[in-house]
Amino acid sequence: MHDEFAKIEWLKSRFDLDGESKKPIVGIGDDAAVLDLGAGPTVVTVDTHVEGVHFTRDLISCRDLGYRAMVAAASDVWAMAAMPSASVVALSLPADLSDEQFRELIEGLAEAAHSTGARVVGGNLSRGPSLTVTTTVLGSPVGESVTRSGARPGDGVYVTGTLGSAALGLAVLQTRDLETGHAPSFVKRWRRPPLHGAAAKALASIATAAVDVSDGCLQDLQHVCAASNVGAILSADAIPNAPDYKATCEGLGRDPTALSLTGGEDYELMFTAPESPEAKALGTKIGRIVDGSGVRVIDEAGQAIEFAETGFRHFS
Amino acid sequence: MHDEFAKIEWLKSRFDLDGESKKPIVGIGDDAAVLDLGAGPTVVTVDTHVEGVHFTRDLISCRDLGYRAMVAAASDVWAMAAMPSASVVALSLPADLSDEQFRELIEGLAEAAHSTGARVVGGNLSRGPSLTVTTTVLGSPVGESVTRSGARPGDGVYVTGTLGSAALGLAVLQTRDLETGHAPSFVKRWRRPPLHGAAAKALASIATAAVDVSDGCLQDLQHVCAASNVGAILSADAIPNAPDYKATCEGLGRDPTALSLTGGEDYELMFTAPESPEAKALGTKIGRIVDGSGVRVIDEAGQAIEFAETGFRHFS
Repeated sequence: MHDEFAKIEWLKSRFDLDGESKKPIVGIGDDAAVLDLGAGPTVVTVDTHVEGVHFTRDLISCRDLGYRAMVAAASDVWAMAAMPSASVVALSLPADLSDEQFRELIEGLAEAAHSTGARVVGGNLSRGPSLTVTTTVLGSPVGESVTRSGARPGDGVYVTGTLGSAALGLAVLQTRDLETGHAPSFVKRWRRPPLHGAAAKALASIATAAVDVSDGCLQDLQHVCAASNVGAILSADAIPNAPDYKATCEGLGRDPTALSLTGGEDYELMFTAPESPEAKALGTKIGRIVDGSGVRVIDEAGQAIEFAETGFRHFS
Repeated sequence: MHDEFAKIEWLKSRFDLDGESKKPIVGIGDDAAVLDLGAGPTVVTVDTHVEGVHFTRDLISCRDLGYRAMVAAASDVWAMAAMPSASVVALSLPADLSDEQFRELIEGLAEAAHSTGARVVGGNLSRGPSLTVTTTVLGSPVGESVTRSGARPGDGVYVTGTLGSAALGLAVLQTRDLETGHAPSFVKRWRRPPLHGAAAKALASIATAAVDVSDGCLQDLQHVCAASNVGAILSADAIPNAPDYKATCEGLGRDPTALSLTGGEDYELMFTAPESPEAKALGTKIGRIVDGSGVRVIDEAGQAIEFAETGFRHFS
């Protein structure tokens, strides 16, 4: 049980022992859970940012950290085709966090709460050895919730925005090379994930499955395929990248295709849907769902491309 | 802003800037928030247990830790006269946590989820430098939510169960003196907080205000008084203690009254209510609400007792 996803599979079976009583509409293993607490479905998700694991304070300001933590959690709600409506925030604060850094953190959380709609209604403060921000976001589905399990053979695979930008931004910060290409724009992209409220509304009427791209496109699509009992073929040359992405990757000695497909933290929405003008308007088509299992990546000549890693995993 | 409660006051004002839009029914500063997400009120609260701050692994097994973390969060829901219905759990796992400890932690969480009704529907796993368990519990009010702000002069102050037992249990563990008095029963009391689902149901029809006793009875009652714009008089000799509590305190060189009133983590429910047989059946009367502000503690002769500290505060 050394792998994050093996742990989650075991947790899912363990916590399901309570049987059908109060069973959620959508439970462990999707972007967010969906509950019926009385008269309508409620979406709930939690996400944690731990100093030294997800960030260091020399790479991101406390204001951007607060913003990022809230948007990353809201992203899981959007990926269910739901709108964030409230949040609670648990903060563990190390002794060396200044009052100014604390205020900045809160300003960033408040800014993102406003932008996402996830008003902060409560929380918890404690001491801790490292700065930890745990954000729980509640929301309401726009229509039917969109899970990871509805993809069907024949559907297209689409993604909003661009891929690889956030991982490239982190690579820029780690090499401290801000002069290469459009480096500062990628850094900003890592620090401030995109807002997808409008896309979440549109997903409700067109998507058969959806996920947010947090662990890396390839790995996140594998989750969709596993949940839907289907396979997928991804066209590497169809992956949308930001202007100057390839040149900046090459300047840093990174493989642009690998970074696009396995770099995490883009927080874009990936969805499957029958081909339609609405799907095309919402995202770029990067592949298609097929019978079978697993994800194959092909180049423009149709040859398979292999990657050493599929994306980010804790505990591996 | 070095004090936990000063930080919370500032947070409250900061996060209220969004004005009346989607304003919660009960917001920051109570045991839990109450939201209207559509067709009925939803209660939500979050609590964190950080290794080295709230516990160390030599003082509590991972199974008891999981149990305790879930019950401590559920306690805030019960204190609103609400019933827990679902939870999400964020875990930060250090590299030295064994698979066996991980499984025990989950078993403890699952046991408490079953006992409290807060079925685990989702969560987040990440690496972290210290074991951190952050539990968000959702619930539904039994009737009207009971907040901290409804206490009225003339009300009695009541508490369920006994006070000081958990703090005494922790003192026993810290001195490693398990031979004194009923030491093991107090240790168990610290490790496994009480379940208060039945009390929460009763609170809905009798209490004017309620709080769970987590920071220490004196401090928690001060929060109720501040929120209600009233004062209170507590009778030290009325405080309910477990059998052999005083002898065990004295054996450890601890002041039993101070520990009862300022020791935290009892997770009993303290409530204010007009005197009635129902209130008496639910808890022990330990004082009364008066005009004014602040809490005075008196001995059996009516003389004021002062304490060096009122309870647990982070960051002070």
